[in-house]
Amino acid sequence: MDGKNQAPRIGRLPAGALDNICDVAGVTVGHVTLDDGPIQTGVTVLRPHGGDSYRDKVPAGVAVINGFGKSIGLVQIEELGVLETPIALTNTFGVGTVANAQIRAAVKDNPQVGREWATVNPLVFECNDGYLNDIQALAVTEAHYGQALVAAGQVFDQGAVGAGRGMSCFSFKGGIGSASRVAGGHTVGALVLANYGRKPNLTVAGRPFGRWLSEAEADAGAGCALGAAGTGASDATAATDATGARTGGPASGPEKGSIILLLATDAPLDARQLRRLAVRAGAGLARTGSVYGHGSGDIALAFSTAYTVPHLAERGMPAPRLLHETRIDPLFEAAAEATEQAIIHAMWRAVTVHGRDGHVRQAITAAISDWSAWLARNLP
Amino acid sequence: MDGKNQAPRIGRLPAGALDNICDVAGVTVGHVTLDDGPIQTGVTVLRPHGGDSYRDKVPAGVAVINGFGKSIGLVQIEELGVLETPIALTNTFGVGTVANAQIRAAVKDNPQVGREWATVNPLVFECNDGYLNDIQALAVTEAHYGQALVAAGQVFDQGAVGAGRGMSCFSFKGGIGSASRVAGGHTVGALVLANYGRKPNLTVAGRPFGRWLSEAEADAGAGCALGAAGTGASDATAATDATGARTGGPASGPEKGSIILLLATDAPLDARQLRRLAVRAGAGLARTGSVYGHGSGDIALAFSTAYTVPHLAERGMPAPRLLHETRIDPLFEAAAEATEQAIIHAMWRAVTVHGRDGHVRQAITAAISDWSAWLARNLP
Amino acid sequence: MDGKNQAPRIGRLPAGALDNICDVAGVTVGHVTLDDGPIQTGVTVLRPHGGDSYRDKVPAGVAVINGFGKSIGLVQIEELGVLETPIALTNTFGVGTVANAQIRAAVKDNPQVGREWATVNPLVFECNDGYLNDIQALAVTEAHYGQALVAAGQVFDQGAVGAGRGMSCFSFKGGIGSASRVAGGHTVGALVLANYGRKPNLTVAGRPFGRWLSEAEADAGAGCALGAAGTGASDATAATDATGARTGGPASGPEKGSIILLLATDAPLDARQLRRLAVRAGAGLARTGSVYGHGSGDIALAFSTAYTVPHLAERGMPAPRLLHETRIDPLFEAAAEATEQAIIHAMWRAVTVHGRDGHVRQAITAAISDWSAWLARNLP
Amino acid sequence: MDGKNQAPRIGRLPAGALDNICDVAGVTVGHVTLDDGPIQTGVTVLRPHGGDSYRDKVPAGVAVINGFGKSIGLVQIEELGVLETPIALTNTFGVGTVANAQIRAAVKDNPQVGREWATVNPLVFECNDGYLNDIQALAVTEAHYGQALVAAGQVFDQGAVGAGRGMSCFSFKGGIGSASRVAGGHTVGALVLANYGRKPNLTVAGRPFGRWLSEAEADAGAGCALGAAGTGASDATAATDATGARTGGPASGPEKGSIILLLATDAPLDARQLRRLAVRAGAGLARTGSVYGHGSGDIALAFSTAYTVPHLAERGMPAPRLLHETRIDPLFEAAAEATEQAIIHAMWRAVTVHGRDGHVRQAITAAISDWSAWLARNLP
Repeated sequence: MDGKNQAPRIGRLPAGALDNICDVAGVTVGHVTLDDGPIQTGVTVLRPHGGDSYRDKVPAGVAVINGFGKSIGLVQIEELGVLETPIALTNTFGVGTVANAQIRAAVKDNPQVGREWATVNPLVFECNDGYLNDIQALAVTEAHYGQALVAAGQVFDQGAVGAGRGMSCFSFKGGIGSASRVAGGHTVGALVLANYGRKPNLTVAGRPFGRWLSEAEADAGAGCALGAAGTGASDATAATDATGARTGGPASGPEKGSIILLLATDAPLDARQLRRLAVRAGAGLARTGSVYGHGSGDIALAFSTAYTVPHLAERGMPAPRLLHETRIDPLFEAAAEATEQAIIHAMWRAVTVHGRDGHVRQAITAAISDWSAWLARNLP
Repeated sequence: MDGKNQAPRIGRLPAGALDNICDVAGVTVGHVTLDDGPIQTGVTVLRPHGGDSYRDKVPAGVAVINGFGKSIGLVQIEELGVLETPIALTNTFGVGTVANAQIRAAVKDNPQVGREWATVNPLVFECNDGYLNDIQALAVTEAHYGQALVAAGQVFDQGAVGAGRGMSCFSFKGGIGSASRVAGGHTVGALVLANYGRKPNLTVAGRPFGRWLSEAEADAGAGCALGAAGTGASDATAATDATGARTGGPASGPEKGSIILLLATDAPLDARQLRRLAVRAGAGLARTGSVYGHGSGDIALAFSTAYTVPHLAERGMPAPRLLHETRIDPLFEAAAEATEQAIIHAMWRAVTVHGRDGHVRQAITAAISDWSAWLARNLP
Repeated sequence: MDGKNQAPRIGRLPAGALDNICDVAGVTVGHVTLDDGPIQTGVTVLRPHGGDSYRDKVPAGVAVINGFGKSIGLVQIEELGVLETPIALTNTFGVGTVANAQIRAAVKDNPQVGREWATVNPLVFECNDGYLNDIQALAVTEAHYGQALVAAGQVFDQGAVGAGRGMSCFSFKGGIGSASRVAGGHTVGALVLANYGRKPNLTVAGRPFGRWLSEAEADAGAGCALGAAGTGASDATAATDATGARTGGPASGPEKGSIILLLATDAPLDARQLRRLAVRAGAGLARTGSVYGHGSGDIALAFSTAYTVPHLAERGMPAPRLLHETRIDPLFEAAAEATEQAIIHAMWRAVTVHGRDGHVRQAITAAISDWSAWLARNLP
Repeated sequence: MDGKNQAPRIGRLPAGALDNICDVAGVTVGHVTLDDGPIQTGVTVLRPHGGDSYRDKVPAGVAVINGFGKSIGLVQIEELGVLETPIALTNTFGVGTVANAQIRAAVKDNPQVGREWATVNPLVFECNDGYLNDIQALAVTEAHYGQALVAAGQVFDQGAVGAGRGMSCFSFKGGIGSASRVAGGHTVGALVLANYGRKPNLTVAGRPFGRWLSEAEADAGAGCALGAAGTGASDATAATDATGARTGGPASGPEKGSIILLLATDAPLDARQLRRLAVRAGAGLARTGSVYGHGSGDIALAFSTAYTVPHLAERGMPAPRLLHETRIDPLFEAAAEATEQAIIHAMWRAVTVHGRDGHVRQAITAAISDWSAWLARNLP
C-alpha cells in the first residue's frame, strides 16, 4: 500500500508494536482462503494461547449487540464465562462444518471428551458472504479449519483473506481487520470480520465519507463516480434489497451483512468485566456509521489472557487479582478505538475481489483514484 | 405398557386428546433412530406447522435455564422472536451436521436463501448421549434429518427413540417424552429430550422416589436392588465423575446431562410472552428433582401456532389480538404440568438400551420388578 | 410451636446450627414490625457483614425469575456484581422511603458519597401486603429502616414479622422465613419474604396439600373446612380477582403476590456464579407449588461472604481462589433445599393476623385443628 | 441563541416540526427547576399520552447500555413490556421521593391500586448532579413531581432546566436535550438527560472537538483557554477523581456521570422491537465521544404511541399490525441521529450554572468566545 492510500489513524491512544490483536501476548491468528471463481470464502482461526484451549480455558464475555446471527457457542460462554476452543470465523453456511472440525480436534487432543469428560463447546462466528461467494455450495470443509489452525501466527494478512475473503463493507470490499491500543498499563487488541454497512453511512474518523461519496455519485451519474474503475457491479443487488434482508452487503437498502468483533486483553478481568469490555466494541462500530442494522448480526466477544481456568478441578484454581472496576475506563477507550481502527484496516487492506455471477467488490483504495485529494480535502 | 407400570399422572389439569405436543393443532413430530451396537442415537424433528417454516415464521421465546449447552440458533430467536426452521434435536456432536441439513433443506425449498434473501437460522438442540452412544463416531448424517422430517406425524413414539435413543435420566433410561394440558381455553403441549438427573434426587409426583431407591439399594447392597435385572452397569461411570463434567448421566456425582424443553401453544402470544411461558418449563423440571445442575444444559423454547409472520414484508403483517397478560396464568400452570408429565413419559415409555462398552440403561419400568407394590406404598 | 405443628423437614442435606441464613458467618437480620389496626407491615434488613457495606462490598448475583416487581437496585448489581448497602425488604409502597433511608445512612457513614465518591445504590425489595395492610397509607418511615438495622442479630423472628407482617402465602399467613443447608464444605442460607401462591397449588414436601385442602373445603362447604376457626375472610377478595392482578394473595384466581428469595453463602463465588446460585432458588420455589405466576414478582439474589471488594482501588483488590465450577452442584442443591425450607418456615412460624377492613390471614398451623392427623395421613 | 452559536446539525434525516420528542403526537414534557444557591436540581416528567398512563399502558423496551445506575422501574418493564406511569427524571438521591409521588398520583387517580388492582410500577431515572448541586440535601420533594406533571406541554425548555439543572456534560454544562427525526413514514423523538463525558473525548458531528480543546488548553495554560470566562472551577474535582467513581462529571479522570436516553415513536412496534430501538440510542451516544464509561449509567428506553394495552382485560386487547422487521432500519437510523442531536441540543441550549461550593459549569456556547471561528475552522 502506498502512502497515498494509507489507512486513516483512529483515536488518540498508542497502538501496540504490531497494531494487531497479537500484541496481546500469546494470541495468534491463521487463515485459509478459498479463491476459485464463484468460491470466494475461507476460514480464520484465532488461538487465545499456545496451549490446549480445552484444558486451559480463558475467561470470556459476550455482547450480542444485534442478534441477527447464526454463531454457535455463545450460550455456554454466557453461562460459564470461558472459552474452550480456538475461535473460528467463516461464512454463515460453514458454521456446522467448522463446528464439527472443532469437535474432532478436541476429541483428538483429549480422547476423554464426550466420555469421561464433558463434551466440548464449539465456537464459530459467521457473516454472510453470499454477494461474492457461492455460499450455497457449502465449500468450506473440516480440513480447512485444521489448516487455518496450523497457519496461526503473530503476523497475519488482513482484508480479503480467510473468512474475510468474500465479505463486503459499505459496498466496498471488507473482510478481516485488526488493531491494538495500549492504555492503563494493558493492551487491548481487536480483530473484526467486517461485512456490514450502507454506503451512505460510511464514516471515517468522524467524517461523513459515505454521504460525500453518494453526493459525488449523484452528481456524476451512475457508473463513473470518483474516477473509479467503475464496474457498476457493486450495485447489482439493489433491486432485490427490498424483498428480504441480510444479503451480503448491497449498495442500497437497509444496512445488512454482519460484523464479528473480537477483543483480547492481557488485563486481569473476569467474565463479567469482559462482557463489559465487549459492549464497548459497539461504540467503535457506531463511529463507522453503523446503527446496528436490523439484518446485521453484530456480536462482540472479549477474552483475557491474564490467567486460565483448568478443565480439571484437581489442577487447582487460579487466584487472579482482578482489575479494580474504577480502573477499567482506559480499557473501554482502547476497546472502542481498536475496534474502529480494525474496521478501517479491514477496508483499507482489502483488495478488489471478483466473485460469483460477475459480482465485484472494489477495494476502497482502488475505488477512489484520486484518493489523496479526498484525504486532503476531508480528513484532518 | 401394562397397568402395573403405567406412568403416574401429574397435576390437576386435563390433558388433550393425544396427551402429547401434537394436541396443539398443526404440530408434528418425527424420528430417526440409530440402533447399531455402540451407535445408539438419532434425530427428532418437530414441525411447528405443515407449511414452509421459513416463509411463515412462528413466534417463539427462549429461556436458558442453565446454559451448559451447545445448541445452535438461539441468539437469533432471542433477537427476532421467530422460528424459521423446524426444530431439530440430536446428540451434542450431531449439531453441526443437522444444521447443515437444515441449511440445505431451506435452500432447496427457497433458492433465494443466502442470495436475494437472508440466510437461514438453523435451530438444533442437543444432549450428550455419550454414556450409551459412541458419540465420538459422529454417526448422525445429514440424510437423517430429512428422514425424520418426512416421518413427522401427530402420533409418534416416545422413550428410547430418535434423539432420545441414547439418553439417560436419573440413571435410568431417558429420552423423548411428551404431554399436553388444556387450560384457559387453550392447549399447551410439551416435548422433552430428557438426559439429566442424579438418581437420589428423582422425584415422581412429589414423592422422593430417588431417595427411597437409594435407601433400598444401600440396604440391599449393590447390584441386587429392587428386584431389578441389576446389571450394575448403570453405575459404571461413578468413578470418573469427579474428574470432569457432563458425561451422559452417571449414577452418582453431580447432576449431569441436559434437558431440552419444548412448549407449543395455540394461544395468541408474542415472543415476550412465549419467553415467559418457557420459563415455566423450569418449574415443571424442578419438581422432578432437578436443581438445574451445573453440567446440565437446561434450555426451554416456547412457540405459538396462533399466527405466523411472513418472511416477505409485501405479504402483509398479521394483526393478532394477543392474550391479555392477566389471563396467562392458566397457561403457566399448563406449561409446568405438561413439562413434568412429559419427563415422566420419557422415562416410563423408554425401554432398556444396551450401548457402547457394555453400558446399559434400564427402563425404570424394568428396573423395578415389583412396581405395583412401590406404587401402593408410596404414591397417592 | 408444639410438636404437632412442627414445620415439615425439607430435603436430605443437613441444616446449619441455627437453620437460618445467619449460619453463614457474619450475616445478621433485624426487623421493625408495625402492628396497629389497619397498619400491618414493616421493614426487614439483612446485613451481609458487620462492617461498612459501602466500603467493603460483597459479590452478588441476581436472577429475575418473574419481573413483576418494583425493587430498586438490581440494575447496578447486574452490571457491577456487588452489593453496597444492607439488603432491605418492605411493602411495595415503602420502597422509595427505605431507599431514601439507605441513602442518608450511606452519606452519614461516608460523607464523600455523591460528592468526591460515587453515589450509593440503594437495594430495597418488596412485596404487596395490601390484603392485610393499608398499603395506601405509606406507613413505613425512614426511621424504621434504621431501627431494623440496629436490631439486626444472628437470631431473629420469622413469620408475621418485619416486612413479612402483612404478607400472605397460599391464602394462609406468610412472611419471613429462613433456613440453611450445609453441602460441599460450605453453607448456603436462605431468607424469603413469602407473599405468593394459589391455595389449590400449595405443595408441602412434595405432597399436593393445597389440592387436598380444596377438596376438603368443597366437601365441607365454605367456612367450616378442616375444623378451622373459619372466618371465611380469607376468601374475601375472590370477587375482585378477575379485575386486576397482584393483590396481596387472594384465595382464588391467578397466582398473585410475590416472593423475594435471598441466598447467602460462605463459598468463594464470583458474581457470575452467584447469579447461577440465585437461579436455583427458583427450583425450591417451584416445589412449593409456584409456577412463577404472572402477577408474582419472583426475584432472587445471592451473595458471598468469602471476600469483599473495596470501594477504593488504593486499598487493593482481593485475590480469591474461586470454587471450581464442577464443584458447585452441592451448593445448587443446598440453595434449592434451603429456599423450600425457608418458605415452609415462613408459613409454619407465622401467627394469624387481622388487618384492614376485617381481612384475616390464618396461620396454617391455626387453620388446621387436626393437624397431626393430616400429617399422619399425608406426609411420609 | 444567536446564529454564531447555533447547535450543529446532526445527520441527514429530516427533523419533525418541533425537532423535539413531542413531534411524536401525544407526548408532552414538563419541568420543575430548583435554582437556589447550592440547590441546583429539578424534576422532568414525560407523559406518553394525555390519558391515564395506568389504565392505558404504552408498549416499551429497555436497553441497559451500562448499568451503573439507580433507576427504579426497569425490572417490570423488561418483563411486561409496558409503561404504567409517566416517565420521571431527577437527581440520583431524588428517586425514592419521586417514586413515592408517582405512587400517590396513581392511587389518587385509581383508588383500586394496591387493593383490588395490582400496585403500580414507578419509573424514575436519574443522574448524579452532585458537582453543582448539593445532592446530599435531598431537596426534591413529592410536590415537585406533580408540578412538573402539570407543566407538561409540547414545547419545553432545554439545557439547564428540570432534572437537567445541575448536570454536566464533557465538563461543560449539560442537561435536558431533545430532537426528532422522520424516517420510513414514522417519527422518532429523543429526549436525553445528559450528564456524562470526559472533555478530551467530546466529538461534535464527527469532529474531535474535545481533543482540539485539550490541545488548545495545553497550549494556552490553565484558565485562559479559548477566550472563555475561565473560572477554572470546572476542574475542581480533578484531584479527587482517582479515589472513587461517578462524581458529577469531572474535567479529567475516567468518564463519569450518566445519561438517560428516552425514545418515542409513533411506529407500531412491540416491546421486543422497542428494545431493539433503544439499543440504537447507544450508537448515537457513541458518536459524541462516549465509550459508555464505567461510572456512567447509560440507560435507554423506547416506547410507542401507536397503541395502548388496557389495564383491565375486560376492555379488550388491541390488534396492532406491527411494523415488519425488515422495515425497521429507517427507525434505527432515526433513533441514532435523534439521540446524537438531542445531546448536542442539551449542551448548546444550556446556560452557565453556578452551584455549590463555588462550582461552575460553563455553557459550551459561553466557554468559547470565538465560536464562529472554531466552527469555520473545524465543522463542515
